[in-house]
Amino acid sequence: MSYEILNTDKLPDYLKSIDAMVSIFSNFDNLEVIEVGDGNLNYVYLITNRDNRSETVALKQAVPYLRVVGESWALTRERMRFEIQALVKQKELCPELIPDIYYSSVEMSVVIMENLSDKKILRGQIIEGKTFPNLADHMSTFLANTLYYSSDLYLSSLEKKAAVADFINPELCNLTEEFVFTNAYEPHDTNSYNEALTQADIDFIQHDGALKIAVAEMKYKFMNNAEALLHGDLHIGSLMTNEMETTVIDPEFAFYGPMGFDIGAFIGNLFMSYFSHEYRQELLGKESLKYRTFILDTIASTWNQFATKFDALWAKHQHDKDPLYFDYPNGGADAKLQRESFLKRVFADSLGFAACKMMRRIFGLAKVADIADIEDLEARAHIERMTLQLGKLLVTQREQFHSIEEVIERAKIISPLQ
Amino acid sequence: MSYEILNTDKLPDYLKSIDAMVSIFSNFDNLEVIEVGDGNLNYVYLITNRDNRSETVALKQAVPYLRVVGESWALTRERMRFEIQALVKQKELCPELIPDIYYSSVEMSVVIMENLSDKKILRGQIIEGKTFPNLADHMSTFLANTLYYSSDLYLSSLEKKAAVADFINPELCNLTEEFVFTNAYEPHDTNSYNEALTQADIDFIQHDGALKIAVAEMKYKFMNNAEALLHGDLHIGSLMTNEMETTVIDPEFAFYGPMGFDIGAFIGNLFMSYFSHEYRQELLGKESLKYRTFILDTIASTWNQFATKFDALWAKHQHDKDPLYFDYPNGGADAKLQRESFLKRVFADSLGFAACKMMRRIFGLAKVADIADIEDLEARAHIERMTLQLGKLLVTQREQFHSIEEVIERAKIISPLQ
Repeated sequence: MSYEILNTDKLPDYLKSIDAMVSIFSNFDNLEVIEVGDGNLNYVYLITNRDNRSETVALKQAVPYLRVVGESWALTRERMRFEIQALVKQKELCPELIPDIYYSSVEMSVVIMENLSDKKILRGQIIEGKTFPNLADHMSTFLANTLYYSSDLYLSSLEKKAAVADFINPELCNLTEEFVFTNAYEPHDTNSYNEALTQADIDFIQHDGALKIAVAEMKYKFMNNAEALLHGDLHIGSLMTNEMETTVIDPEFAFYGPMGFDIGAFIGNLFMSYFSHEYRQELLGKESLKYRTFILDTIASTWNQFATKFDALWAKHQHDKDPLYFDYPNGGADAKLQRESFLKRVFADSLGFAACKMMRRIFGLAKVADIADIEDLEARAHIERMTLQLGKLLVTQREQFHSIEEVIERAKIISPLQ
Repeated sequence: MSYEILNTDKLPDYLKSIDAMVSIFSNFDNLEVIEVGDGNLNYVYLITNRDNRSETVALKQAVPYLRVVGESWALTRERMRFEIQALVKQKELCPELIPDIYYSSVEMSVVIMENLSDKKILRGQIIEGKTFPNLADHMSTFLANTLYYSSDLYLSSLEKKAAVADFINPELCNLTEEFVFTNAYEPHDTNSYNEALTQADIDFIQHDGALKIAVAEMKYKFMNNAEALLHGDLHIGSLMTNEMETTVIDPEFAFYGPMGFDIGAFIGNLFMSYFSHEYRQELLGKESLKYRTFILDTIASTWNQFATKFDALWAKHQHDKDPLYFDYPNGGADAKLQRESFLKRVFADSLGFAACKMMRRIFGLAKVADIADIEDLEARAHIERMTLQLGKLLVTQREQFHSIEEVIERAKIISPLQ
């Protein structure tokens, strides 16, 4: 059918018209349709058969504008094509971590998938102080599989270039270029500032030459380094979890970009959670040591497990990819050095991107609830300053760190773990 | 018309059917059609009206295979689309340095352009010891204009991504990936070796871990860094010159890649000419000092003028591109530091790519006449060893050089200028 915007009234008939839905719903006469009103970009509905509540799906539809702003902010529905393509590819590469996809239509800008009703958005749960013992394992698997298998290290040159072409995603990349890498670092009119911050706090970021050059370098890498298929928006609001399970959602920002961007997005968001819980655990009436240790352990373990898993995937395929290149005495050791050198560069990139993803949340339009929802503005400003301090350090010194543990030590100097 | 392979018999009628040719040729009854038999990939014809020899064009047609090998090596005609697109864009950016284009047809894989009968291929003329006082000026202009204006430093994010998509050129990029960055560095069956070289000479490149890792890094940059619209094959056989003028031809390898690749291609080829003239000037019965000084001066001047011109273009547009980003006290100085840091990275890339373009010519399938046509195999081996020595140094130490003069000093240590 040609494109039309769906709503709660139209949805039952629409679903009935789709073969794949006929095998999920035993009838369409008593459907409960709930609009989940929290998406920035799109409409999301949860649809359940009241006669059998195990018959349930989630439906996401893109509209030709930014949902949270309205029709005045045009944004083509093309983003749903990228989301569908990315979901399909990610599902192939890490089936356990991606929702089941039942149906998709580029024409209708619709995807219908598993209703993850047993999970909640991770950010809210981290704010509440919940722990997730498998999170680092799951995220390192997601990162290693999606980044390795979509890159030139695995694909043939022709396959990789075809994939790059399929994922040229100018509109959503442009949002990232503006909001992650530009506006927050200058006196842009989309910014908003906690009024408890001073001009000196703002200048700390907006007037620092070394920082501005480093952020511009990260932006340039983001725009130019088509290394791997990225999720493109991998903060802790794009993850749905319960205590033991993790699902990665919302990949409409997917494109071929630098590997460190996804890794940095996740790690940077966790560092903000770490800083915020200096205050939040107190607010929750708890000792902060244990929870903040969980956050730092998750950061360390995500990077370290990612590096181990990525290296293992590469090592497994390296010889087959080019049987002659390292085929000489000591060639095996040289191949290992190549992998180490590569991962050292990805680590530096990850720190630089983590820094940008952190700093932009302080002055930029889109905040994170971990910090921005703190009502005591002085307490919030303290956490914001710590975030900016670590961000500046990481982006300018990103090539000087030798391990994630060194980075964590610096975070602990800024906000002691006690 | 639908695709057919042209030949000297068919060409007069074909030209007559094209409007743009009717305004060039006053009649089609007495055309001289000469096939220029020296292309590796395509057929090239020079067509002249014998009744008025100023009425003349060059016609290039791609065939669905590699011309030099024959139909057994399939290669789609798609390459002519890239050549046409690149010629149009380059002509816009540096009109003086690109042939006039009279007609093109993607369907026929044909481009008809200016007959550059007053110029010859540069490589042959350098082998003969001719000098070109404007060469560095012309090449630095070509490089600065094409690289700056096609990059994110000038274009909007959306324009740039559309251009990247238009120039995804998998087949010809794959040739470069194989022949410039892989086969020559391993015991590949497409290689051929001067029999005067020893196993130690071969191992010097093929068994050296630091070199192999560095070459793999350059290959990865070539495959992943879509910075600017490259010519893609900018050696001294892709330039036609007379004493005062330069024309850049044959951009079928055009794609969005790292800026240093084009710069390195040109510089690397000149270093090989420098080494070869240690022997060739002697062969020509001349003192080598003056000619080899011309070559080194051209290398230095190309990089230094490129850096100056590129920086000037960027400085001119930097404020308009983002008026707020460096708008603070000392912001102008920081913007300048950003440009310097950027060019330092492009310089390192250029040296790394120059090295790969040099080394691959020694063991790889495609040689350069400067070296491979030397009949005395021991003399040739001496020049080949010097090329490999500088290549290894440049690719492994590419980030340690601070100026092109430092690089030239190292070339002079390897082959003293006397």
